[in-house]
Amino acid sequence: MEIPSKLLEEVVEHFASLPGIGRKTALRLALNLLQKDEGSLERFGESLKSLKSRINYCTVCHNISETEMCSICSNSKRDKSTICVVEDLRDVIAIESTQQYFGTYHVLGGCISPIDGIGPDQLTISQLEKRVASGGIKEIILALTSTMEGDTTSFYLYKKLDSDELQITSLARGVPIGNELEFTDEITLGRSLLQRVPYKNNFSNNT
Amino acid sequence: MEIPSKLLEEVVEHFASLPGIGRKTALRLALNLLQKDEGSLERFGESLKSLKSRINYCTVCHNISETEMCSICSNSKRDKSTICVVEDLRDVIAIESTQQYFGTYHVLGGCISPIDGIGPDQLTISQLEKRVASGGIKEIILALTSTMEGDTTSFYLYKKLDSDELQITSLARGVPIGNELEFTDEITLGRSLLQRVPYKNNFSNNT
Repeated sequence: MEIPSKLLEEVVEHFASLPGIGRKTALRLALNLLQKDEGSLERFGESLKSLKSRINYCTVCHNISETEMCSICSNSKRDKSTICVVEDLRDVIAIESTQQYFGTYHVLGGCISPIDGIGPDQLTISQLEKRVASGGIKEIILALTSTMEGDTTSFYLYKKLDSDELQITSLARGVPIGNELEFTDEITLGRSLLQRVPYKNNFSNNT
Repeated sequence: MEIPSKLLEEVVEHFASLPGIGRKTALRLALNLLQKDEGSLERFGESLKSLKSRINYCTVCHNISETEMCSICSNSKRDKSTICVVEDLRDVIAIESTQQYFGTYHVLGGCISPIDGIGPDQLTISQLEKRVASGGIKEIILALTSTMEGDTTSFYLYKKLDSDELQITSLARGVPIGNELEFTDEITLGRSLLQRVPYKNNFSNNT
């Protein structure tokens, strides 16, 4: 049976176009919206309509920001010589929550993915090159997910940026803390054996 | 770290107010929307804004419908003497997809839930009573989920509608087809023992 309303069908299709939401969930969400008061729906719709045109990005790191320069880039206590390259805002939030990183970021806005039509030009890669070329950068930390797209992007950036003055590092890969060995995939476990570290390093945060 | 944009925060909060969507998923959805083209966001926002005011309901069964009377209520081949009482459109779609039901529906719009401030007056219960009072109804099938709210609503309807002329039935409860006994909860398994059926009934759809 089809959804007996074109408008509802439209809302369902919009929800279903979001990642991780199928048609059944989309219908559940749309019907839930019908229970809400009209004012709340009005505000939801209005904020969606203006989302893309009204959102601003930091001119330095390209993270979402209300101000021209975000709170991290304008913080004089942050180490400006280290740039951590991430995909989007969520990664910045995740790394900030560790309270172990005091450098700055560069938000790419995605990963190179030819299948989705995303090439280097759709990302903020040229802006990163400019930041590096302007000098004062000592280390680039590539903190992209290790999927096909993430690894491709990391390798592309490495090829573009590699020079004697610049240290290019990537996140340590290994068995997550608390995970049991038997449930760790063989690639991760294999790499954590190859890249094993002196035991006493575990006692310190700065090794 | 907070979300560094009020507008994005607003969109995240709207998404997070939907059932089954937490703040992390909401942020993922909102960031995904930023990748879409502006026209698509415009249409999504517009359809949400007009959703509640522009949606129409069937005057008979109160299901969502573009026309005054929905396609089921206006279908002369459907058995008008049987009404299946359901919570919302999703249940109608689920029952229609079985191709085993040829009566009509009555969509309550929810279940009685004092904790959410939903009493009988917020549902289409009085309209159901009117349909029954207008005559010609032989059977009411209560097809609500067997949660606390669903059971309360079923019992309330039973007390309201019970009469000698009207047969009130509910869906059969039992072990789902294909399920293993060891994984079936004890209440369902217990009831399926108490309400066991003659084995030969399984060979026919109309017993």
